[in-house]
Amino acid sequence: MLNRIRTVLIHNSHPGNIGSAARALKNMSLSNLYLVAPKRFPAKEAFYMAASAADLVENAKVLGTVNEALEGCSLVFGTSSRTRSLKWPVVSPSVAAQKIVEELKNPEAQIAILYGCEQSGLTNEELEKTNYQIIIPADPIYSSLNLAQAVLLISYEIYKLWAITLNEDLALNEDLTFSHVKEAPYATHEELERFYVQLEALLLKVNFLFEDKPSLLMPRLRRFFNGARPDKIELQILRGILTAFQKRV
Amino acid sequence: MLNRIRTVLIHNSHPGNIGSAARALKNMSLSNLYLVAPKRFPAKEAFYMAASAADLVENAKVLGTVNEALEGCSLVFGTSSRTRSLKWPVVSPSVAAQKIVEELKNPEAQIAILYGCEQSGLTNEELEKTNYQIIIPADPIYSSLNLAQAVLLISYEIYKLWAITLNEDLALNEDLTFSHVKEAPYATHEELERFYVQLEALLLKVNFLFEDKPSLLMPRLRRFFNGARPDKIELQILRGILTAFQKRV
Repeated sequence: MLNRIRTVLIHNSHPGNIGSAARALKNMSLSNLYLVAPKRFPAKEAFYMAASAADLVENAKVLGTVNEALEGCSLVFGTSSRTRSLKWPVVSPSVAAQKIVEELKNPEAQIAILYGCEQSGLTNEELEKTNYQIIIPADPIYSSLNLAQAVLLISYEIYKLWAITLNEDLALNEDLTFSHVKEAPYATHEELERFYVQLEALLLKVNFLFEDKPSLLMPRLRRFFNGARPDKIELQILRGILTAFQKRV
Repeated sequence: MLNRIRTVLIHNSHPGNIGSAARALKNMSLSNLYLVAPKRFPAKEAFYMAASAADLVENAKVLGTVNEALEGCSLVFGTSSRTRSLKWPVVSPSVAAQKIVEELKNPEAQIAILYGCEQSGLTNEELEKTNYQIIIPADPIYSSLNLAQAVLLISYEIYKLWAITLNEDLALNEDLTFSHVKEAPYATHEELERFYVQLEALLLKVNFLFEDKPSLLMPRLRRFFNGARPDKIELQILRGILTAFQKRV
């Protein structure tokens, strides 16, 4: 599905960037690379930098004009950090991703994203072929991204959203929670209570706690271990350690 | 504020990637580059690829070990696309960004993000120094990102969220607040390392661990306590308990 998104590099001057862009695309499940009048291509740097994405470089379509690259496209974006005197509708990469994933629901839709040459980016004329300008959030003091880096960020936002829409369960998890990998079910309340009983007895025995002196120590330890939520294996280890100590004191 | 985030490149083998990473950092308002035992540095490729971020390369801290790079850090991430046999808690880049922006509210907090060498990524031992593993969403068929590309994506998620929080139009969402209220700052990396050293010595002494038998016990304990993120008071109590036991065995 993401192969209906064309990544169009216009007047590329460093073939290494073509390779790096290809790698970034393949990392993010995109595959469709268009080159408009590249300065030097094919070139060995492109294949070298592509690493395992040499197939994308091999299959890149080389065209003479931007218009040829846009044939059949119903939605076109241009990436540029510069706003123009004629302001173009601007979207962030994540909003662009939303529009793209929405557009892909139409099984005929072809989409293109334009990237200008390394030195000066998109010309006004090129930008004006697009529906939207994408501005990548970046430090205003140094907002000029390497070409392949820009390709990566846009592709990443598309891939993230696309992967989420494929798997609706994932959508709930991806940005809101993290997978705290527990290998066993969480220890139960009563298992934790037994741990605290054992711990407290041992702390009394080694004079770290005293029967007759009230202290916040046990409440603090409870808050710490309750907050940490040990699973059954972890609690078993902790109790094993206490038992090993018990035998020695 | 984002200068309290250390980007730590471990055993870098291609100095060009150091430069590209520096450029990506500067694009995203980060500035603090640490190099652990780089294969070749300083190197002209690093300065060449850095473009206008040569100052970050110039100011990079070169260190011999990961532990030195983590001194003073209370929150540590490791980027790796591989899950391990001992699964580490995994977060996405955007969830990592949430945790980082939250942590930065403590004006003393120092944060580190570890990136492994280009060939094989982080070792288990390196990952086990972290609180969380970051997995970048990518095509499972080709999930190996170029080093500087990985640096860019993580930095981009941080910058995006940070820029949003600066601009109070968008209220911080509830997920950014931690439910566990800590009374003291989080313990730092080296404080936790000293705890593990003491714990391991004691476990050997009571024959719960054996020098000559490899075991997942210490990695499991590290995962548990790193995940629990003790604050300084809690860690003091835990160490106090170990010391009390030590005197008796």
